[in-house]
Amino acid sequence: MQRRTFVKRSSLTVIGMGMFGSLLSNNKKAVAGLSVNGKRIESRIFELAKFGKDSNGHGYRVAYTKGDIEGRAWFMELMKKAGLDPTIDAAGNIIGKRKGKNPSLKPIGFGSHIDMVPDGGNYDGTLGSISALEIIEILNENNVVTEHQLEVIIFGNEEGGTIGSKAMVGELTSDGLQQKSQSGLTMAEGIKAIGGNPDNIQSCIRKKGDFQAWVELHIEQGGILEKEKIQIGVVEGIVGIVHWEVTVEGFANHAGATQMNMRQDALLAASKFIIAVNEVVNSVKGTQVGTVGKIAVLPGAYNVIPGKVVLGLEIRDLNADKIEMLFKEMEKLTANIAKDSKTTISFVRQPNESKPALTNKALQQTINTSVKALGFSTKFMQSGAGHDSQHIASIAPAAMIFIPSVGGISHSPNEFSTATDMANGANVLLQTILKLDKE
Amino acid sequence: MQRRTFVKRSSLTVIGMGMFGSLLSNNKKAVAGLSVNGKRIESRIFELAKFGKDSNGHGYRVAYTKGDIEGRAWFMELMKKAGLDPTIDAAGNIIGKRKGKNPSLKPIGFGSHIDMVPDGGNYDGTLGSISALEIIEILNENNVVTEHQLEVIIFGNEEGGTIGSKAMVGELTSDGLQQKSQSGLTMAEGIKAIGGNPDNIQSCIRKKGDFQAWVELHIEQGGILEKEKIQIGVVEGIVGIVHWEVTVEGFANHAGATQMNMRQDALLAASKFIIAVNEVVNSVKGTQVGTVGKIAVLPGAYNVIPGKVVLGLEIRDLNADKIEMLFKEMEKLTANIAKDSKTTISFVRQPNESKPALTNKALQQTINTSVKALGFSTKFMQSGAGHDSQHIASIAPAAMIFIPSVGGISHSPNEFSTATDMANGANVLLQTILKLDKE
Repeated sequence: MQRRTFVKRSSLTVIGMGMFGSLLSNNKKAVAGLSVNGKRIESRIFELAKFGKDSNGHGYRVAYTKGDIEGRAWFMELMKKAGLDPTIDAAGNIIGKRKGKNPSLKPIGFGSHIDMVPDGGNYDGTLGSISALEIIEILNENNVVTEHQLEVIIFGNEEGGTIGSKAMVGELTSDGLQQKSQSGLTMAEGIKAIGGNPDNIQSCIRKKGDFQAWVELHIEQGGILEKEKIQIGVVEGIVGIVHWEVTVEGFANHAGATQMNMRQDALLAASKFIIAVNEVVNSVKGTQVGTVGKIAVLPGAYNVIPGKVVLGLEIRDLNADKIEMLFKEMEKLTANIAKDSKTTISFVRQPNESKPALTNKALQQTINTSVKALGFSTKFMQSGAGHDSQHIASIAPAAMIFIPSVGGISHSPNEFSTATDMANGANVLLQTILKLDKE
Repeated sequence: MQRRTFVKRSSLTVIGMGMFGSLLSNNKKAVAGLSVNGKRIESRIFELAKFGKDSNGHGYRVAYTKGDIEGRAWFMELMKKAGLDPTIDAAGNIIGKRKGKNPSLKPIGFGSHIDMVPDGGNYDGTLGSISALEIIEILNENNVVTEHQLEVIIFGNEEGGTIGSKAMVGELTSDGLQQKSQSGLTMAEGIKAIGGNPDNIQSCIRKKGDFQAWVELHIEQGGILEKEKIQIGVVEGIVGIVHWEVTVEGFANHAGATQMNMRQDALLAASKFIIAVNEVVNSVKGTQVGTVGKIAVLPGAYNVIPGKVVLGLEIRDLNADKIEMLFKEMEKLTANIAKDSKTTISFVRQPNESKPALTNKALQQTINTSVKALGFSTKFMQSGAGHDSQHIASIAPAAMIFIPSVGGISHSPNEFSTATDMANGANVLLQTILKLDKE
C-alpha cells in the first residue's frame, strides 16, 4: 500500500511539468547511485510464473492462451501503478510511456516479452519485461525525470515467431497472420484475443528513426557465460531463423503382413532425415544450429507401418547464406533417403522467418562502459536465440544485454538465473538507459 | 423385401424339427452345388464401410467408438433376419447360433471381426464376418440343416489386441482390461460400451473341446498371393506379437541457444533407435517383422530440442524365441545410442501380447481338399498378421483361409480384394464347413 501511494506521488511529479526545475539537482545526485531492487525483480518473476500452467503444473503461458492473457493483465496493472498508462497496439504489443523533459527528443525503448514456449521456463522474456518496469519504478522512487521519453514495450507472441515486433516493423504479412499459432488460433485470432486489431495491423508500425535506441535485457539461454564465469554478455548479433515443414510420404500398411522389403515406411525415412540434419549441421565449423523439434506420424498405431510423417526443421545462424547452404545440403541428402525407402520427401518453407540482425556498435560500447563502471566481467557474443530486438534493429539502433542461465538451460521448467545475476543485468540496463539519455 | 420373406421362411424350416426327414434328400443334392452369392458379399462390404468415418471421410470404425457400435448394430440386425438370434457375451463378442440336427455334436464355429484400425480398410475382418453370415443365408435359402450346430462369432476389438478372443480363452487379465484402447476408453469401458460386461468377464470363457472346429476366412493383408497369382492361402500358423513402449529421455532446451555439442536430443536418439530396429530385423533370415508405428515428442515445437520421446515398438514372428532374441539385440544397441546422445532409453513390455499359434494340420487338409474340389490354386503360408484364430487355436482345432489383397495393401483406405476372390474364399469356407459337418 505504501509503495502504491509513493508511486502515485512520483508519477504525479513526473507529469507535473512545473516541478522539473526543482528536481534537476536531485536527479543528478540520484542518477549516479541508482540501483534496482533485486528482491522485487525476483519476487515478480515468481508471481508472473503463477499464470498459465498445463495439467502437470508446468509453465504454459503460451501466447494467446488464457495464461498469457491473465499474465498480461497482471503486468498492465503494475504498469498502471507505475504511472505508465499502458495501451495495446494493433499487434497486441503492450506499450507504456513515461514522459521526458524534452519532447523534441526521440523515445528510448526497452522491454521484452512475457509469453513462453509450451512447458517453458520463468525467466525467458520475463526478466527483461520485469526489469524494464523496475527501472521505471526506481526512477519514480528517486524522482528522476529523463530528458528522453521512455517507452516500455512488452511484445506479443515472441515465442511463436516474434509476431509483435515483426508487425511493429511492418514485416508481418497477411500470410503470417493466417498461420496457426501454438495456441491453436491463427495469429490474427490470437492477436484479437489479447486486445490487438489484426484488421488494422499497419497502425502499429513504427518507422525508421522513431526511436533514439532500443535495449533488451535477456537471459543468455545458452551455457557460455556460466561456463566462462562471466557476469554480463554484450550481444553483437542475433541469428536468423528459418523453419521448414517437412513431409515424408510413404505407404501405410499392415505391420504384420507386410514383409520388410515390401515396406514404404515414412518414419524410417524421417529418422534417416533427422540424422542427416544433425550430420550436415555438424559438418561445417561455426555456431550454426539445426533442430527437428516436432514430429507427427500417421496413422500412428503399433500395428500400422507409418504412411506419413510431418516434421518441423529449424536452422539458425548469424549468416543468412549459411542457412541456405546448410538447407541445400540437407535437401541433397533427402534424394537418396527417399529413393532407398521408396518415399517422397517435400519441404514447405514457413512464413514468419527471421533475418539475422547485427546490433548497433555504439550501443554495444555504451552497454560495455556501463558494465565496466559497475565492475562486472563482460563478453561480446552472439545470440543463438531469436529476439524481438532483431526486428527493432531494422528501425532503430538496438542492443541486448545477456545474463547467465544456470546450466545453459532454457525453454524448460528448469530454466533458472540467480537473483544476483538478474539484479546485475537490470542495473546494467538502468545505467545504459541513463547514459543514453545523456548522449 | 422378397429376400427377407424368403429368409424368414427358410429360418422357420430349420427350426421346424418335424421336417428334417423330408429335407435330407434335398440337402444331399443341394450341398454339392451350394455356392455363395458373391454380389451380396461385396455389396454388404460396401454397406458396412459406411459406418465410422474420420473427418477426412476415411474408415475409422475403431473398436468401442460410435462407428463400431453402429456397424455392430447393423450386423446384428442382419443376423436376426437370418434367424441367428445374436447375443453379446461378457467380452463384447457377438455370437449367433444355428441349431444342428444332432444336439450331441459340438458346434462348428466361424466368423471374424468388424472393427478396424484408424484410417483402415474395408476388407480386414469384415470379409470373414460377412461371409460367415452369407453361409448361414445360403444354407437357409437351400433348406440345408447341418448335423452340427453352427456358431457365427464376431469378435470384439480385434485390432486393439484381439481382446474378444483373448477373453474367450481366459487370457484377458485385469491389467489388460485397464489398458487404454485406441478409442480413448479403457478396454473395460469399451467392452461396456459395446454391450459386454467386464465385471463378469469370466462368463465368456469357452473351454478346450467346446468347439468341433473353428475356421476364419480373411484377406491375406500381404502381397504374396497376388504376386504369385494364387487364389487361396491355407494358413499354417499365425505369428506372435509383442509390443514395447519405448521412452527416450533427453533434455528439453532452447533450439537456438544450445550449441550442437551441448544437446541431449531425445528425437535424434529415437531416430537412431528406429534405424537400429530396422537393421536388427533385417540382420537375420526369415519372415520376422519389426515396426515403430507411433511416436510422440515432448514438448514438440520448432524451437525446442526434444526432451522426451515415447514410441511404440512391435515385433512379430512365428517363433516366440526369435522375438525375444531380436528384442535383446535391439536392447543391446540402445546402450550405445543412449551413451552417444546423453539420453536414457527404457522399455515397458505391454500387456495383451499374442503368442504364436500353429493351425490344425487336419483342418488345413480339409480346407485344401475343398480348394482342390473347387479348382482353385493354393499355397500353404504363415500369417504375419495376428488374428482371433490364434487364441481360439488354444481351445479348438483352428484354421484360416486367405484370399489375395490387391497390392498387398492393408490397414489402409486402399485395402482391396476383388469380388471374385472374396466369393472364392467364401465358397472354400462354405465347402469346408460342410465337409467338417460330415466328419
